[in-house]
Parts: sequence; C-alpha cells; structure tokens
Amino acid sequence: MSLELRRRIFDALDALVLIDPHTHINPLSPASTTLADILGYHYYTELAHSAGMPKEQIEEPGLDPKEKVHRLIARLGPINNTIQYSWLVEMAQKFFGFADERVTLQNWELLYDTAAAKMASPDWPRQVLEQSQLEAVFLTNDFDDPLAGFDTSVYVPCLRTDDLVFHLCKPDVQDRLTSCTRLEASSAESTRRAISALFNHFKGNNARACAISLPPDFSPAKVSDSRANTALAALYQHGSAASEADKRAAGGFVFWTLAEMCAENSLPFDLMIGVNRGVYEAGVHQGRDLYDSRVSLIQYKDLFNAFPQVTFPISVLASVTNQELASYAWIFPNVVTNGHWWYSNTPTFIEHDLAARLEAVPRTKQIGYYSDMYKLEFALPKFAMYKRILAKVLAERFCIDRGWSEERAVDFGTQILRGNVEAIFYR
Amino acid sequence: MSLELRRRIFDALDALVLIDPHTHINPLSPASTTLADILGYHYYTELAHSAGMPKEQIEEPGLDPKEKVHRLIARLGPINNTIQYSWLVEMAQKFFGFADERVTLQNWELLYDTAAAKMASPDWPRQVLEQSQLEAVFLTNDFDDPLAGFDTSVYVPCLRTDDLVFHLCKPDVQDRLTSCTRLEASSAESTRRAISALFNHFKGNNARACAISLPPDFSPAKVSDSRANTALAALYQHGSAASEADKRAAGGFVFWTLAEMCAENSLPFDLMIGVNRGVYEAGVHQGRDLYDSRVSLIQYKDLFNAFPQVTFPISVLASVTNQELASYAWIFPNVVTNGHWWYSNTPTFIEHDLAARLEAVPRTKQIGYYSDMYKLEFALPKFAMYKRILAKVLAERFCIDRGWSEERAVDFGTQILRGNVEAIFYR
Amino acid sequence: MSLELRRRIFDALDALVLIDPHTHINPLSPASTTLADILGYHYYTELAHSAGMPKEQIEEPGLDPKEKVHRLIARLGPINNTIQYSWLVEMAQKFFGFADERVTLQNWELLYDTAAAKMASPDWPRQVLEQSQLEAVFLTNDFDDPLAGFDTSVYVPCLRTDDLVFHLCKPDVQDRLTSCTRLEASSAESTRRAISALFNHFKGNNARACAISLPPDFSPAKVSDSRANTALAALYQHGSAASEADKRAAGGFVFWTLAEMCAENSLPFDLMIGVNRGVYEAGVHQGRDLYDSRVSLIQYKDLFNAFPQVTFPISVLASVTNQELASYAWIFPNVVTNGHWWYSNTPTFIEHDLAARLEAVPRTKQIGYYSDMYKLEFALPKFAMYKRILAKVLAERFCIDRGWSEERAVDFGTQILRGNVEAIFYR
Repeated sequence: MSLELRRRIFDALDALVLIDPHTHINPLSPASTTLADILGYHYYTELAHSAGMPKEQIEEPGLDPKEKVHRLIARLGPINNTIQYSWLVEMAQKFFGFADERVTLQNWELLYDTAAAKMASPDWPRQVLEQSQLEAVFLTNDFDDPLAGFDTSVYVPCLRTDDLVFHLCKPDVQDRLTSCTRLEASSAESTRRAISALFNHFKGNNARACAISLPPDFSPAKVSDSRANTALAALYQHGSAASEADKRAAGGFVFWTLAEMCAENSLPFDLMIGVNRGVYEAGVHQGRDLYDSRVSLIQYKDLFNAFPQVTFPISVLASVTNQELASYAWIFPNVVTNGHWWYSNTPTFIEHDLAARLEAVPRTKQIGYYSDMYKLEFALPKFAMYKRILAKVLAERFCIDRGWSEERAVDFGTQILRGNVEAIFYR
Repeated sequence: MSLELRRRIFDALDALVLIDPHTHINPLSPASTTLADILGYHYYTELAHSAGMPKEQIEEPGLDPKEKVHRLIARLGPINNTIQYSWLVEMAQKFFGFADERVTLQNWELLYDTAAAKMASPDWPRQVLEQSQLEAVFLTNDFDDPLAGFDTSVYVPCLRTDDLVFHLCKPDVQDRLTSCTRLEASSAESTRRAISALFNHFKGNNARACAISLPPDFSPAKVSDSRANTALAALYQHGSAASEADKRAAGGFVFWTLAEMCAENSLPFDLMIGVNRGVYEAGVHQGRDLYDSRVSLIQYKDLFNAFPQVTFPISVLASVTNQELASYAWIFPNVVTNGHWWYSNTPTFIEHDLAARLEAVPRTKQIGYYSDMYKLEFALPKFAMYKRILAKVLAERFCIDRGWSEERAVDFGTQILRGNVEAIFYR
Repeated sequence: MSLELRRRIFDALDALVLIDPHTHINPLSPASTTLADILGYHYYTELAHSAGMPKEQIEEPGLDPKEKVHRLIARLGPINNTIQYSWLVEMAQKFFGFADERVTLQNWELLYDTAAAKMASPDWPRQVLEQSQLEAVFLTNDFDDPLAGFDTSVYVPCLRTDDLVFHLCKPDVQDRLTSCTRLEASSAESTRRAISALFNHFKGNNARACAISLPPDFSPAKVSDSRANTALAALYQHGSAASEADKRAAGGFVFWTLAEMCAENSLPFDLMIGVNRGVYEAGVHQGRDLYDSRVSLIQYKDLFNAFPQVTFPISVLASVTNQELASYAWIFPNVVTNGHWWYSNTPTFIEHDLAARLEAVPRTKQIGYYSDMYKLEFALPKFAMYKRILAKVLAERFCIDRGWSEERAVDFGTQILRGNVEAIFYR
C-alpha cells in the first residue's frame, strides 16, 4: 500500500544522521533564546505582514521578545494554511511537547515559557543538533569573518561573496576588505591577491564552499585585466556613484576571479541563481526580495565551460528553471543540483522538481536538501518536510511506477540526503 | 480512503452558496435562450474550428440557432476529450436531464428542444442561479454602460477598462467617453476628471471592482502630466494614426490614473495579465487570442509599491507565471491570487497552480475561482470542475500529506471559495 | 483499483501495432550489431561522462566494441537511477532474456555475447520490428540522401532541413546541394528551384514529412526576394565568413520557402523548437546541446497565419513551453502537438505535459509519441515508458477524476498512439 510504503521509506531516511550543506547559522549563537527568534524568522514576519500586520508592530525598536511573540501569534491565523506555519507547529511539538495543531492566543504562553526554559540551557544547541540528527551545518560567512570561537568541524565555514561581487563600490565593503587583507581591490592584480588571501583564510579554517546569490540578469563572463583595472579604480574613486558599467565590469571580474580561486583551492562554488533584491521596498527585514523567473542557465555557459575543474552546486529560485538545471546537470560534469531554494521550497514545487531530477540526473550529482535556516531549531521540520516528499516520490515514481524494491529506493534517498554531501564537499 | 475523502470534501464545498467574482454576463440577458447560446461560446467554436470546422459554417450570417447547433454537434467528436466538452455534458445533465455521456447527432435534438422549452421560461435565469447556488455574479461592464435595468446586488457592476488604456486612440472610444462624461481625455487633467466621473458612476451603482486585461509586454509606470498632455493630445488629433510612443504613454497614464482612482474609491483593481490579442487573425469570434508566456510580475513592481492601499486581485494566463504570482502574493500585502484564467483553466494546470497557492499564500489572500462565463448556465459545471480539484488537493496534500482533519480542510476550502470574495470585494 | 486499471489500459495500448513518426534510424543499418551500438547512444555516453567518465575513454579511436561496452558498464553505477538506464535494462530483458535489474561488471559479458549472437542474424532488424510491434519508422534524411536501397513503406523518408536553413554558408553544404540538384542556392529563384527539386525527390520516394530543429531565438518571417538575393549571394561568395545578418536573412528565406513547398506538396512540416547546439563544447558526440527555455510560440505567429494549409506537428524542448503548445494547438487548426522531445522525454515532464494536452487539445491533433531512436532496439522500451504514463494519466485523470469508462479511455489512447499518425502523415 502506497501510504505505508511512503512511511517505511520515510522512517528509513529519517534515521540518517545528516550534514546540512547551507544555512545562515551564527556559530556563536546557533540556537534560539526565545520563541521570538523563531517567530522573527522572515517567513513568519513577511507572511504576517502580507496578511495585514503592520511592519511597525513587528519591528518596533526595543520590543520585548515575549510581546513580539504575542503580537505575531495574534496574527498567524491567516497563515495557518502555509507550510511555513507547519514548520512552527512541528518544531513546537518535537522540541517542546506542544500538543495542539495550531498556536493560538490561548495556548502560546505556555509554549513560550516552556521553550524559554529549555533554550536557557547552555547545552541547548547541542541538544537541538542531536535531536535533529545533524552532525554538522554549513555556514554563510562574510568574507571578513574571523572564523574564530567555534568548532569548524560542526559549524563549517563557507565564504559568501555577494558583497565582493555586487557591493564593492561601497566604502564600507572596501574598508572591510582592507581590514582583513591589508589590500585594496582597486586593480586586477591587487583584487586577485586580496581574494586569494580570503581563500587562504577560509581554507585554513576548514571552509567547504564558496557561495553567492545572483540576480536573474547576471551572466558571468571573463573580464580583461585592463577593463578590470579601469572599473575597479572607478569603484575606489567614486564609490556608489561609479557608473553602472564600471560596477558591472568590476563585479564580473571579481566573480570570475572567485571561480579561479575555487579551482585553485578545490572548493565547490555554490551558485544561488535568480533573486531580485529589494523589490518590495516597504517590506519587513528580509521580506523584500522577489524575482523575475525569466532566467536561463545558458547565461552560465561560458563559466561552466571555462572551469571544468570546479564543481558548481546550483540552486534556482523558480521552479520553471528546474528543468534547465536538471538538463545542465545531466550534460555538464561540473554542474550539480542543490536543494530547493526559498520560493521553491514548498511541497508542490519540491515534489515536481525533485521527481524530475531523480529520474534524469546522475545519482551522484544531486544534493538533496539544505535548510537555509538562521536558527538550529528549523532543520528538523524543514528536513522532515523534504524527507516526506522524497519518500513520496520514491514510493510512487520508483517503487510503484518503475518497480524498484524498497531497499533500492532507500539507498538512492540515502545518497541524495547524505552521501553526496560528503562526496562533493569533503573530497 | 482517498476517493471517499475527496467526495466528502467536495460535497461539503458543493453545498456552499457562492458569489462569482468575474463573468461576462449581460444582466439584461443573463441566461441562454437556446443551445446555440451555449455552443456559441468561444470554447466550442474555436475548438471545433481548430479541429477542422470552417469558420464560415459557424459564423454564417443569419444562421438559424438550431441549424448552428446541428452543425456544431456534428463537429464535436474531435473535441469530446476536452474538459470544455465535459462542461457541456454536465450542464445538459444537470439542467436538462440529459442522460448520455456524449452529445451526438443521434441525441442532440431532444436536448435542444428540452433546453429551449426550459429556457423559454421568464424565470429561467433565476432558476439557473438557484440551481447553481449563486447569490451574485460580477459583470464586466464597458466604461459607458448605463448600469440600468437590473438588480446590481445580483448582477454586480465592475468597470472594465481595456478600451481606455489600449484603445483611447480610436475615435469611437473617444466619442463614447465624451457621451458619458461630457469630457475629452485629451489632457492629463481632463482625463483625470473623466475617469473620476466614471468611478463615481460605477461606485454609485454598487460596482465592486475595476478590471483590465493586459498584454505580456505591459509594464505600468507613472507618466508625468506633461508627457501625458502631449500623448493624449496626439491621440485626439491623429486617432489610430498616432505614434506607438504616444499610444503607450497615454495608455500608461490612463492605467496609473485608474490605480489612483481605485485608491480614492477603495475599489480592488483586477489585473488579468498576459494576453496577446488577435494572434490567429482568421480565427472565430473570441478565438484569436493567445500569449507569450515570457512575462514577469517584476514588471508590476512600481505599481505594487506605489499603491499599498489598493488590492490587486491578479490572474495570470500562463501556468508558468503562477509561482511568481504565489510569491508576490506571499510578499506584497496588496497582491491577491485570483482564479484560474482561460488557458490555465484546465484541470492539470489548476491542480498544480492551486496546490502551490494553498500551501504558500496566506489563506485570506486567495480568491479561489470565477467562471468567466458569458451565460449563466456555465457557472455550475465550471465551479464543479474547480471544486473537484480543490477537494482533491485538500484531500491529498493537506489531509493525507500533512495530516489535516477533514473539517479543517473544508474550512479552508470554504474561505477560498466564498469567504475571501466577501472580504476582498465587500469591505 | 487504480493500479489494476492502469495495467489494463496499458495492456490494451501495448497490444497496438504502431508507426514511429520520428527516428534517426539508418535504413541501411537499422539495428545494432553489438551492445556498443546500444551503449554508444548519447544518452549513455553523455550521462556517464557527466558522472565523471573522461570523454577520451569513450571516444578513443579504434576502440573495440566489447571493450567500449566494458568501460561504459563500469561507469553506469552513478546513472542507474535514470529513466534512460531503465530503457537499457528493459531492452536487455525483452530482447536478450536478461534477468537482473542492473547491468554490472558481473553480468555484462553474458549479455554482450547473447546480444551479439542475436544481432548477427540477418533477420535481426525484422525481428526487432516485430517484437516491438512496429509497422514503420520515419527517418531523418539529409536533403541529399539518395533514398535508395530500402523499403520506403517500412523506413519512411522525411526531409531534414537544418543544413539548408542554418548551414548553407558552408561550402560542403553548397556542394552537396549542387551535387543532388545541379543548382546553386545563390539567388531566391534558384533556391526555390533547388528546394522544389528536393521535394520532388522526396515525395517521389514516399516521404511523409519535412522536419527541422530550431534554436530558441528563431522567429520565422517572410524575406523578400531582393533581400534574399543579396543574402544568398553573400553566402556563396563569403561562405562561413558571411555576415550574421546575411546568414539570418538567407536562413529565413530558405525556411519560408520550405513552408511554401510543404504547402505545394501537402507535406506536414515538423518543427522541433528550442535547441541550442554546442553549449558544452567539450562534451561527447551528440552530448553538447542544451537550451534556453525562454522561447515562445508567438515567434511563429506569422508562419502559422501564412500557411493555413500546412500542418505543423510541433515538439518543444522544454516543459515550460508545453502549455503554449497546447494552447496554440487548441486555437490554430494547423498546429498539432508532437511527442515528448529529448530533455522533456522523462516521466515527470511527460506526465505533466501529456495530461495538459489530453484535456485541452482536440483529440485529432495530438501525436502521442515518437522514439527519436538511432537503433531499432530503443523503440520498445521508450514506447513502453510512454504507454505506462499514458495509461496512468488516462486511469487517474479520465477514468477516476472524470468518470470515463475504461473503453473510452483506451479508444482515446489508441487514437493518440496510432490513429493520428495515420491521419496526419498519410492523408
């Protein structure tokens, strides 16, 4: 029977100890201290705001955490259909013994207090990791992160490079770069040295990936040193007032240089493709970004051809780009599918996109899932969602439609969830 | 068991009395007088034509209604697989006691005569509304519609504005505007006054929405008064021979002004995005329009940001735009998903698009369905199709996949089908 | 019960004798001589290469067939999840009595030898056709193919025209054209005569279609004779060094002329829309092409309007274009949906795309499937895959969701699989 089959496959996958290959965890404060950290996640604030809650109520300066939670709970009714809401409930049930199916003004306070008590334990992050069966989580580190004060085998550094590619015109980015490298990226040559220094620092601290998020119109291409020299000099001279052309040329040069350094340092380069920043200007914190789904991986043709030795784990923001991703991973040895990102991280899109990948991309080239979380508590419900869908697709499309044995399906799921993360990031 | 669960949820949803928030009903002749009104619906004529029936056979001047039906029935075999054909059969079964599963040259005549007899009753529109469990239907009124001679609480006016935005260069549109407002839209200021007059007229007659259909390349932006003055003057001076640039500027100005008036008058602005008119020039009446699915809601960024006080119920023509719609409704408080339009109004696309909305858009921000009908008889089978899919998605993706109770699923479905129409259009 | 229903519908469809309306079979060597012909299919070489197998190991000059198979088998583990791999296994089981579910280094050699023995029979192609229940297969012939030495009622010629539209600037293409027509396509008039001669040759040899594959940015338009004269002359004068503008104009003219000849000769014009050639330059043979899914059938508006008398069976490379295809086939009498091409020829996309077509496109206007194969052995597993999905969609979406009888579903499937191929290509 299909439902029982799904459940058995899920149970087998749910028993695995995993590594989460992309998160925004702060390793110095990895878990929540109150439910306000949970409900402050942009998924809740932006959905509550979208459903009518004024931004000012959410982001009032100096707002007490408990009052913030109280206010948000009062506004969650309109979003209790969403999968994001279900993460909250599952988290409350699994970590804090919450017994209801909705968090309401009637039952929230006990939950808040229970959570606060548990979270107060200095051991809480370790408890969460253990209950979530997580061995390690990858971070998203600013390029000038000292990477000190935490265990890099559990909290694994990754070099995030959006600032360097898209905001190098800003004086504070320039200053941060100089602070940590003692170099100015004002010429092609010094930029190369600065970036090389960053990679040395990160590689020396167990970094496992370089990563960046990219807008839909980005199309990487090699920029000559002479063009880069002009552009970079302009960025240092004019700052944010530099021309768009110079900003683009400088960004293009930095991006290409990052790929070169990934090659030199044998680091995968995670590309997260398709986001437009700041589309809804009046939105809540982290709730302003959207996208234009008219993007194609053909824009990355030159990059993929130029760097056969670099593995590119790729996430796409829109489900309509997923077939291209599956096809490019099917053809290019260095393209790997990576998780289900943001607006595509909901069951309908995961199911469709996952099914397409499982049947057409080599099994060694699929990274099943990452949580993208800011606080450790989210890995459990997010991975649980994914594992349920993975079990459903394996049961329905492999065991039933294609006659696979249950064991074969579980082996495949295990590789997607765990094996490939090791093979790709821990070579 | 899944099928029984679906049936129970469907039955609960099917018991609801609904308001149809978008139709093309003529309130002075809302129902059909013969089956020719039914089979004259463009879905049948265009599909029959696509399958080989010459346009001339369908649109012969002076053609007797019964002969028209006879001819079309003879040509429906090639389209009896389509969902549109199923609407015909269900309608015939529910309203006219038709007992077969196909309408053929053998059984059509009795159906024709039975229908004609029933339709002859002066009470027929009321009977159809009652059997269809419809309390009210929204109209699509020309801007110069007198809105007289009908009960606006049952046939609810909506101001359709395509002519003003896209055809103001045409002398007859200019004349119609002058006839009903005594104003010429030949300057920014007079255009504002003319549109304001239209809104007064419509608001005074219980109008619940302003609406427009838009081509894929439309991208609204504020147009200055001075640019509008030049453009509008050119439209009045040169008519259809005005330059494309002036037509675009004038249309852009009118569109932005419509949004301003929606704000002033607290009217939702229905945007139906993505249609190219007249793609198949030799097609039957209303069977000539298609689309370019390369459209993005990023084109509406400025509009959504500029009018936070206006609700935009949005329909997209292509399923590939649905994820953007769901994401924009998830982020922008003023963006609402609206039904399943035209080429996306078939089960496979409805199911995929609906599932994505139900799990990621606040439950208060989804208008489930409208019939888009020209004659009242179509609401019943079209809504029945939608309710079956809604029941399927709720059963499979919420009750089974997410463990929801049946009651909770029915509550959600009820809000999508009925509650939100009231909340959004009857504030 | 759904699974039994699927199986019964599948069994009924699987009993049909079919015509395969698009393949790359060489009629002088239609079947494989060893497993190397099977494993040399680009689906295996490109997937193995994508999973890490060096191109040099696959394409080593003079490589012995058995050693080639040995090497590839050793590398298939990473792709044993793919649907393409399942074709291999099903083929081995059905034709060669293979009993395992994976081909490995342990069991491959017996399979190789068994296959080689069977394939050595001069009767092997006929055996394969018979076991595959294939009555005829359509070919993809170069324009200068002599079409001699085979039975054109079994191996049905189709005129492939990519070279003429996209490579006429190349001296060897010019030479080949002159060799077979004694004409130079260096003016509009002579081009028309040359193409006419090709059509005469093909029509005289039982050709059933003209066909071409097109890049995403192709947009056919009528080119004037005077512009064509300039462009064609430039191609003959400068060869590959001719300007892009001249190449485009010449290609546009040739394409439009092909459509004219299809009209004159009552030949369907198969359009395969969306491929970018040579995206992955270092890929294996035939494993270098990808695509940009940002394509629209609106680009073909002028063509469809200009040639109402030509049937255009259309394949799209990306699933995101499928809704447009279904809609254009629903409106344009001369647009027909054609199979599931290449990167869309995997179960998840077939299922979604097929479901959308079955419910919205006239049943007479859908060509269900073609194998696209290079060797006869592939028709059996590829068609079996398709028929399983067709049976699933008919069972779930027509019998269960819409209450169709099993017989009605089988009738519909039969028309899609067999009837329409005859009606469209054998008028």
